[in-house]
Amino acid sequence: MLLSVLVALTTIMVTARLVGALFKRFHQPAVIGEVVGGILLGPSLLGRVSPEAAAVLLPAEAAPFLGVIAQLGVILYMFLVGLELDLRVLRSRVAITVAISVTSIIVPFALGAGMASALFETLAPAGVGFTSFALFLGVSMSITAFPVLARILNDRGLQRTDMGIVALTCAAINDAIAWCLLAFVVGVTQSTTSAAVQTVVLTAVYITLMLTVGRRAMAAMVERFDRSPRIGERSLALVLVAVLLSAVATEFIGIHAIFGAFLIGAIIPHESVIARHVTERLEDIVRVMFMPAFFAFTGLRTEIGLVNTLDDWLLCGAIIAVATAGKFGGTLLASKTVGLDWRDSAALGILMNTRGLVELIVLNIGLDLGVISPRLFTMLVIMALVTTMMTAPILSALLRKRPWAVAD
Amino acid sequence: MLLSVLVALTTIMVTARLVGALFKRFHQPAVIGEVVGGILLGPSLLGRVSPEAAAVLLPAEAAPFLGVIAQLGVILYMFLVGLELDLRVLRSRVAITVAISVTSIIVPFALGAGMASALFETLAPAGVGFTSFALFLGVSMSITAFPVLARILNDRGLQRTDMGIVALTCAAINDAIAWCLLAFVVGVTQSTTSAAVQTVVLTAVYITLMLTVGRRAMAAMVERFDRSPRIGERSLALVLVAVLLSAVATEFIGIHAIFGAFLIGAIIPHESVIARHVTERLEDIVRVMFMPAFFAFTGLRTEIGLVNTLDDWLLCGAIIAVATAGKFGGTLLASKTVGLDWRDSAALGILMNTRGLVELIVLNIGLDLGVISPRLFTMLVIMALVTTMMTAPILSALLRKRPWAVAD
Repeated sequence: MLLSVLVALTTIMVTARLVGALFKRFHQPAVIGEVVGGILLGPSLLGRVSPEAAAVLLPAEAAPFLGVIAQLGVILYMFLVGLELDLRVLRSRVAITVAISVTSIIVPFALGAGMASALFETLAPAGVGFTSFALFLGVSMSITAFPVLARILNDRGLQRTDMGIVALTCAAINDAIAWCLLAFVVGVTQSTTSAAVQTVVLTAVYITLMLTVGRRAMAAMVERFDRSPRIGERSLALVLVAVLLSAVATEFIGIHAIFGAFLIGAIIPHESVIARHVTERLEDIVRVMFMPAFFAFTGLRTEIGLVNTLDDWLLCGAIIAVATAGKFGGTLLASKTVGLDWRDSAALGILMNTRGLVELIVLNIGLDLGVISPRLFTMLVIMALVTTMMTAPILSALLRKRPWAVAD
Repeated sequence: MLLSVLVALTTIMVTARLVGALFKRFHQPAVIGEVVGGILLGPSLLGRVSPEAAAVLLPAEAAPFLGVIAQLGVILYMFLVGLELDLRVLRSRVAITVAISVTSIIVPFALGAGMASALFETLAPAGVGFTSFALFLGVSMSITAFPVLARILNDRGLQRTDMGIVALTCAAINDAIAWCLLAFVVGVTQSTTSAAVQTVVLTAVYITLMLTVGRRAMAAMVERFDRSPRIGERSLALVLVAVLLSAVATEFIGIHAIFGAFLIGAIIPHESVIARHVTERLEDIVRVMFMPAFFAFTGLRTEIGLVNTLDDWLLCGAIIAVATAGKFGGTLLASKTVGLDWRDSAALGILMNTRGLVELIVLNIGLDLGVISPRLFTMLVIMALVTTMMTAPILSALLRKRPWAVAD
């Protein structure tokens, strides 16, 4: 059994590197290539072309273990995403960024929830209530992937430009709100109404506790470590235990473990020695080993063959159109309204349309909850990939003539 | 199920930190405390005192997942041990170190194998051949834990003294020989005679290939990375894939995956940029998360209650005495013969008697193979702990009056 897991991990890591490198060559974020690599290993390609090869390279008995490795990976990843968040930045440019990010959630959420009535009949799994289905679709439309967006801006050296900072801030606020929404939707879906209310109340209490007591405790711990001359494995141990405890707490409350991990990341001061130390110690192994396991795990559940008729593809195209209209359109209008010019508004719109792997995490939660069917899951995965992949080339086109100014 | 794994991991990490810190306070290596912590979580204490608490803190359904995490951890750990090996150092002081390390294997191996005839009747599992049993006992007596020994020397700032270097070199040679012996024993145990010969031949071929072609390929790769200005996640990915491939190869050959991982570590130049980079990226997470999982995994299989009569404890004492006599005595005599004084010979002897967690890895392999019974496993675990714990205080006593000279 160890052998199966080792073979599967090797397959997954090699595929991720190869397809990732290929995408990078075409000026796409490598991580999207890694996601595509995971899909290629699943029933969409390898499982269809050669079930024998799939049985050797990704043995079925390894699947549950890959699942756990993938989930641990996502927990660590969302913790790192939280750690990247700079809560202090959120305080600058408050008016503009809050206006933009709230609009860039409300519009796609409304469009997604509206679309739900059209899709409910054909694509909702049996037994799912319309409210849950509509709420989940709304959330899945309103995700902006902070990490992929940060990567795209970094790759082009845009993270210190005026617009880069606005984009990052909006994405961060967006991320935080979207996760709260998701927590709410998961609570509603998993429970009866009274239990859902309990989940929502507990979640609110937990978030409040973390942002007050938890944040002060973290600040105290961080200060102690910042003063100590040598920072050893103990800091990593403490932080990881905090992440695990918070993950367990949120699972108990009834929302997902990654929400707790994200919160711990968010309350640790972004620029502290410990944040940088832990990021350095975790980032590479999470990216190189854990996340590819998650992409393969997602890929095994994504079956492009399920989208097989012209109607299906038209539907899939409609979903992409609605998602883009909501996110791009909503952001564009809000930005224009608060005073940005057309070009910057369009750039911000296309950046906010980046859904990346945060969307994949959300979609996997939806599939696990049974709110969406495997077919809808596949369509939404395609939507996530397409909206993310359109960002880089459109951004290049918009910036070709006149680059953005660097903020001071 | 994710919840069970998260709760179990949290329990394991917290216990490891607490008991590790306690041991450190008593001038013992923290890692031995972590091992003891793992045993306390198992049927020896927690499972006996409160099965209900054990069921909550270490849910049974999490066990297979912990097993895989533990095994991955051991693979990464043995890779790091190999990486720590400096093959160049092995070339200095050849006469002394080779004489000492060979003797310090032969004597305990002979004593262990000799003891086998006394233990075979009562402690060998049904169906195990005497040869396998004797060979395995011989190997289990001749382990010296390079990493714990290095940690003890580092903690006291002795790693650059003349004797420190001799001790590290002897331990490294010892480690390499012991792993080859273990590979041989596993081959013999798992197969019929003809298949065992095949395994041994394949192992020899594999080792030769790795030390020639593999080593040159690694040197070339390392050189490329050493020249590049920025060393990114790609280096970690490449090295991890190499480790996994080598682990898979050795599993296929019929010896254990960790042997392949160790070999990859050994052939990567010790002082290269990539070696330091990868060590830095992996070491903490392996120590903090993966190894405690292995200790808990070992602890769940160690049942001190199985050693319950006076006779059992006398037997356990005899095993400890034989192990120490073989390792300490063999090293002492060899060192005295090649010209060291009594004090240095004794210090080297007690250092080589450190069995640490490398011994635990070997014992788990023996239990998995069915060569030793759970009762003998428990006795040998106790032996590993006792021999490792006696090192630090005896070393302090020996060095109290006159410290060692620092090598130039």
